[in-house]
Amino acid sequence: MKNRVTGLFGIQYPIIQGGMVWCSGWKLASAVSNAGGLGLLGAGSMHPEVLKEHLTKMKAATKKPFGVNVPLLYPEMDEIMRLIIAEKVPIVFTSAGNPATWTKILQAEGIIVVHVIANTKFALKCQDAGVDAIVAEGFEAGGHNGREETTTLCLIPQIKKAVHLPIIAAGGIGSGQAMAAVIALGADGVQIGSRFAASMESSAHESFKQKIVEAKEGSTHLTFKKLAPVRLLENPFYQKVLEFELRGASAAEFEELLGKGRAKLGMFEGYLTEGELEIGQVSALIDTIKPVQEIMDELISGFNSTVENFQKLLL
Amino acid sequence: MKNRVTGLFGIQYPIIQGGMVWCSGWKLASAVSNAGGLGLLGAGSMHPEVLKEHLTKMKAATKKPFGVNVPLLYPEMDEIMRLIIAEKVPIVFTSAGNPATWTKILQAEGIIVVHVIANTKFALKCQDAGVDAIVAEGFEAGGHNGREETTTLCLIPQIKKAVHLPIIAAGGIGSGQAMAAVIALGADGVQIGSRFAASMESSAHESFKQKIVEAKEGSTHLTFKKLAPVRLLENPFYQKVLEFELRGASAAEFEELLGKGRAKLGMFEGYLTEGELEIGQVSALIDTIKPVQEIMDELISGFNSTVENFQKLLL
Repeated sequence: MKNRVTGLFGIQYPIIQGGMVWCSGWKLASAVSNAGGLGLLGAGSMHPEVLKEHLTKMKAATKKPFGVNVPLLYPEMDEIMRLIIAEKVPIVFTSAGNPATWTKILQAEGIIVVHVIANTKFALKCQDAGVDAIVAEGFEAGGHNGREETTTLCLIPQIKKAVHLPIIAAGGIGSGQAMAAVIALGADGVQIGSRFAASMESSAHESFKQKIVEAKEGSTHLTFKKLAPVRLLENPFYQKVLEFELRGASAAEFEELLGKGRAKLGMFEGYLTEGELEIGQVSALIDTIKPVQEIMDELISGFNSTVENFQKLLL
Repeated sequence: MKNRVTGLFGIQYPIIQGGMVWCSGWKLASAVSNAGGLGLLGAGSMHPEVLKEHLTKMKAATKKPFGVNVPLLYPEMDEIMRLIIAEKVPIVFTSAGNPATWTKILQAEGIIVVHVIANTKFALKCQDAGVDAIVAEGFEAGGHNGREETTTLCLIPQIKKAVHLPIIAAGGIGSGQAMAAVIALGADGVQIGSRFAASMESSAHESFKQKIVEAKEGSTHLTFKKLAPVRLLENPFYQKVLEFELRGASAAEFEELLGKGRAKLGMFEGYLTEGELEIGQVSALIDTIKPVQEIMDELISGFNSTVENFQKLLL
């Protein structure tokens, strides 16, 4: 499949592994790149020296294209970006911030820049900023999420109508069938998080991976809407969040409840009671922890069989 | 396209027009049936004598298959069902209640029964009750909605995995591309509400239709979660609901705020300030009020062009 996404990144399949905090280190990202997709290191949970170590290991583990996801609200941003430039990272996915701030600086160094958005307003900002592609992420997605609550099914056509950029769909995609669905809507590729978070190569804590596999319909919830919306898996910490929501707690109360370091606690250290467990709605469809190669094979064969079945469907 | 849905209903295209309160009378439903889809009268906003009148006009306006949507919590249920049986309605879509209550009684009269669900638990109940097909409706949908907030993209594969029944996907579908997307996910057909609510033949008030056309991303919200979740379009009444939500009002307070007859007020009588305006998230993608035939033509050509483009996409 040659299209705007495979062409832009120089990859075989239009499948990007989302850069996730605490899940996507060099092991996961290199496995995805080696399997013909695009692996992303999740810098959102890495201090610069940790990122440097992952970049060194990444380069030793794959000769294929790879990238780094950088949430722009990160406190050590200048240092992270200097490191990315010095290490000649070929592709950067930015998120949670203004695409105008870094796009031109990175592109001047020959870096391909993609920005993550959840609404048309930011898609247009991305286009103005000159990004090379956008990730359009729907309500289903795990972790940080848009305020409009627009689902992937409604978001992709909306973004397609608004901008001419290549569109990578994210949120709710964990199978080749879902990949076919969002490509039918006009996407040029997919970004997949949750399915890869529950892979063998993911750096998530094994207990968290097990929780993903056990997740059912309705097990994830969009929370912290008075701060910045984030989709969490149910656990005792979520129950506290829910209590706060039902009684209409203030933003300051939510901030205090959240505290610091809860994502690391839950997702990386495996404290499932007190930690924050970020995962997408599609976790309900994830039943086993698998190696990346198997996940990729299933995505591709599921996509191809869907496309083949479609030949019979003309109305 | 011959499949389980077109075959079950004896229709040309697997497109069902959702039975919507205050929008879908005989004019809309007969136009959809005449165009090769399945038109449904929305009995949820009709007293028995009004439904009788619509059935008489419906039969005069089309010789094609049609149906009635009946929310099972309706106060005049026995009378409605007696009328449906006496009038030899060929197809009934039930919703908002237990599928076991009426399915066998209706089927014994030769009526095809479909039930609307938003989660696997109720899909399995439908299968046990022996319904002929199910509508699986995602978080995007207008009006009453599931508690799990599962989006159509995540819901359809989940339901497909759980039951062998024909699946009609609903929520977020207003184009042939979206139709192709949900069929890629495993649906056998689609139920479309919002797009038909903003048709020339819809019985919605013209001012409400205009509001649908003006709706943007983030203009609809899932509200009243402490009672039964319902997706509403923003207006001054919604702003009051939001205030109640932010301060954590009780279920009793919400009940008092809602009162009686707000949907009629907004959707049928055009009181856009105080009325309840039920519409789906896909309203952001609806830009014009069109005749049903044009909507159907666009759905079919959009679906076909998507299928044709897919031929080139094998990985």
